Amino acid sequence: MPVPGPGYAITARVEVPASASAAGDLTMAIGRVGGVVTAFDVVEAAHNEILVVDISCNALNEAHAEEITAALEALPGVRVRKVSDRTFLLHLGGKLSVESKVSLRNRDDLSRAYTPGVARVCQAIAANPADARRLTIKRNTVAVVTDGSAVLGLGNLGAAAAMPVMEGKAALFKRFAGVDAWPVCLDTQDTEEIIRTVQILAPAYGGINLEDIAAPRCFEIEARLRELLDIPVFHDDQHGTAVVVLGALRNALRVVGKKLSECKVVVCGVGAAGSAIIRLLRSSAPGDVLAVDINGIVHPGRPGLDNNLTWIAEHTNVEQVSGTLADALIDADVFIGVSAPNLFGAEELATMASDAIVFALANPDPEIDPAIAMAKAAVVATGRSDYPNQINNVLAFPGVFRGLLDAQARDITDAMLLAASAAIADVVTEPNPSFIVPSVFDSAVAPAVAEAVRSATGRSDVAPV
Amino acid sequence: MPVPGPGYAITARVEVPASASAAGDLTMAIGRVGGVVTAFDVVEAAHNEILVVDISCNALNEAHAEEITAALEALPGVRVRKVSDRTFLLHLGGKLSVESKVSLRNRDDLSRAYTPGVARVCQAIAANPADARRLTIKRNTVAVVTDGSAVLGLGNLGAAAAMPVMEGKAALFKRFAGVDAWPVCLDTQDTEEIIRTVQILAPAYGGINLEDIAAPRCFEIEARLRELLDIPVFHDDQHGTAVVVLGALRNALRVVGKKLSECKVVVCGVGAAGSAIIRLLRSSAPGDVLAVDINGIVHPGRPGLDNNLTWIAEHTNVEQVSGTLADALIDADVFIGVSAPNLFGAEELATMASDAIVFALANPDPEIDPAIAMAKAAVVATGRSDYPNQINNVLAFPGVFRGLLDAQARDITDAMLLAASAAIADVVTEPNPSFIVPSVFDSAVAPAVAEAVRSATGRSDVAPV
Repeated sequence: MPVPGPGYAITARVEVPASASAAGDLTMAIGRVGGVVTAFDVVEAAHNEILVVDISCNALNEAHAEEITAALEALPGVRVRKVSDRTFLLHLGGKLSVESKVSLRNRDDLSRAYTPGVARVCQAIAANPADARRLTIKRNTVAVVTDGSAVLGLGNLGAAAAMPVMEGKAALFKRFAGVDAWPVCLDTQDTEEIIRTVQILAPAYGGINLEDIAAPRCFEIEARLRELLDIPVFHDDQHGTAVVVLGALRNALRVVGKKLSECKVVVCGVGAAGSAIIRLLRSSAPGDVLAVDINGIVHPGRPGLDNNLTWIAEHTNVEQVSGTLADALIDADVFIGVSAPNLFGAEELATMASDAIVFALANPDPEIDPAIAMAKAAVVATGRSDYPNQINNVLAFPGVFRGLLDAQARDITDAMLLAASAAIADVVTEPNPSFIVPSVFDSAVAPAVAEAVRSATGRSDVAPV
Repeated sequence: MPVPGPGYAITARVEVPASASAAGDLTMAIGRVGGVVTAFDVVEAAHNEILVVDISCNALNEAHAEEITAALEALPGVRVRKVSDRTFLLHLGGKLSVESKVSLRNRDDLSRAYTPGVARVCQAIAANPADARRLTIKRNTVAVVTDGSAVLGLGNLGAAAAMPVMEGKAALFKRFAGVDAWPVCLDTQDTEEIIRTVQILAPAYGGINLEDIAAPRCFEIEARLRELLDIPVFHDDQHGTAVVVLGALRNALRVVGKKLSECKVVVCGVGAAGSAIIRLLRSSAPGDVLAVDINGIVHPGRPGLDNNLTWIAEHTNVEQVSGTLADALIDADVFIGVSAPNLFGAEELATMASDAIVFALANPDPEIDPAIAMAKAAVVATGRSDYPNQINNVLAFPGVFRGLLDAQARDITDAMLLAASAAIADVVTEPNPSFIVPSVFDSAVAPAVAEAVRSATGRSDVAPV
């Protein structure tokens, strides 16, 4: 059952008769209709014995917020002046600002930061383009690029409506790794136009983070941009998810004492995340991988496979089996779901190998009820913050780009992604079934990931500028 | 003769024998070769009677900096450890940062700023696109767009080398008007691609500032984008210059007691700036305007006129005269040059009407030597900071966009530009020949310009969202 959370928080400004029981009456009224009070602030105590208070609480949704308001108004002598949605208040005016790192107090400052001094800096870059990484924001700046075609789980909302997510992503980049990130929301969903636009914008950036672009378009965009650009291209929905999943899997396997090379892994969902998980898993030499989508197990004989599924069919499923998700789960050691809610239950779970690992990452409703999974499986992870072991991309992307930018990397390789994965896992020194990934607020994560990526750039074919 | 300025400032770290005359010796050595010492800092006084000092000075150029270094090394007992270029130091790592306006301390913060709370904000914008101006950075953000084809006076340096200027511009936007501006340097110089790319990027921005795009391409790009977009498009090299020039002209005419409607104005140079000055002048009903370029006075009978020159020929030069710049200057009341250095001298100046106004804005060397102009003309302005009356676009663009953003303007009109012009002029309450424009550091300018533009949006056909 869903629980009121801070994603839907309201603050009601309320007039109440000044009495000893006023606060308690309000709090109880909200509690009776299922709201969770988070703050109570007296705004003014007027001479006429009326108290004005701001009472903040978490609600489920809009209807619930209205129910809470009605419950307050039903109290004798109480008047609700206004109800503010605290989430919307936080987003008012946007979530980013652009600040100058140089002071511009006087004419000398202007002469150095702008004309005439800046001319020499421009000429230096024209003469030696690699200097852009030293003398411009390219050094520390990443473009967060979307076409708005797959915004969160909401679908195709378009460029303007994607902005709040991309701004939030940029805020996370700064908060967790000091990376300057800028939202680039493209008002086109044409693959060629997206590729060309990013190419045209690229000189200003040290890296490209693709975000919320629908599959299968995202695969071609990523692959082509990697060919075209001399800066790393990372698709968070693919690579970010894969990095965190593999890190979590590494620790889950430690908990159950199995080796990946001996495991049968079922990956359910072959969109952006599932496909990237399968590709990165392959670099870690698993026993076998079975990819499953809405049409069942992917195998080379299945009709209607697109490029992505053809590749997957050719690189998974050693015994070329066909069948349903239930068939795939029999004797599987690991289930990784990035697909849809409620696809299986206790019965199918019971057919898995002993000490099963279940990552049911569909959001907000996992592939299997987490309570059922936790009763039977050895380790369970979800995408939700209200269960242990949340698989959250915030563990990966800030540190990954910190490392890439510091190394002035021109490319990103599987070796770097696997290094990031291991770094995340290794922040947890003693994993247990409820603790296979660090907290998103663990300040050790991003530096560890950055260092791992940075040294992986030295171990691969990627050379600094 | 050029003078060493802060645009080329160096700091030399020098070891000198610790003696009473050490400081004086260094300063005098620099002075003898024409350097201007700006700072003297002792870094360490070592036990062995060696002093380490940082001595900062302004130089003319690279050769001069080397001459200064050599002069220091020639002193007995002196060793130069290293010489830093202070302009380059200031640009290291770029001049902008992206900051989060929301705090992300804990899980509740994340839930509101990012998932799941952000989903409702996205949906609100999808349902009502105008909400993007309330709930995203579009509210306060301008794109500073260039193709790098006409960077300062340096020419076609390309996208990467244009970054230092665009970053500087963004820093000025923030410093003078609190506008968040972002450099958008396009790695294409194809007119159609530039237009399409800006259109694709536009949803995130509340305005477009075109910058350093070569003429005549800039005219088509600006005109087409104004048609296509629902946000204002301003080309600073055109409209910014025109706004400041017209403001300065307004005060210059006050100084000499003439009316524009009775003046003959010569505009020399019909690139981006000259063409925009002519267009905006026309809205102010001058007596007559003669446009002059390298081929002489523009008139309808002149062969080889492009679209821009044809328009100018049809809208200036009442008597359809032809001739040279010298011919144009005879009896002219106002000369406005945005062209090339040293085009005329005292002789031609003497043929102008009495109380002549001369704006010789070519940089760094004006159309006429300012010393000669100041001896004969009633009012002289240049583009340089080392003479009175500097015509500097910084007086216009920050306030113009502050006003446009605050009004949620969807377009920009000549009425708004003229209002900005008048506002700049009126900050100077008692103009005199050396004071026709306010200082770029006068904090009254941007708010006055913003207010003028904002109220002009109400007076024109532009409606807020």
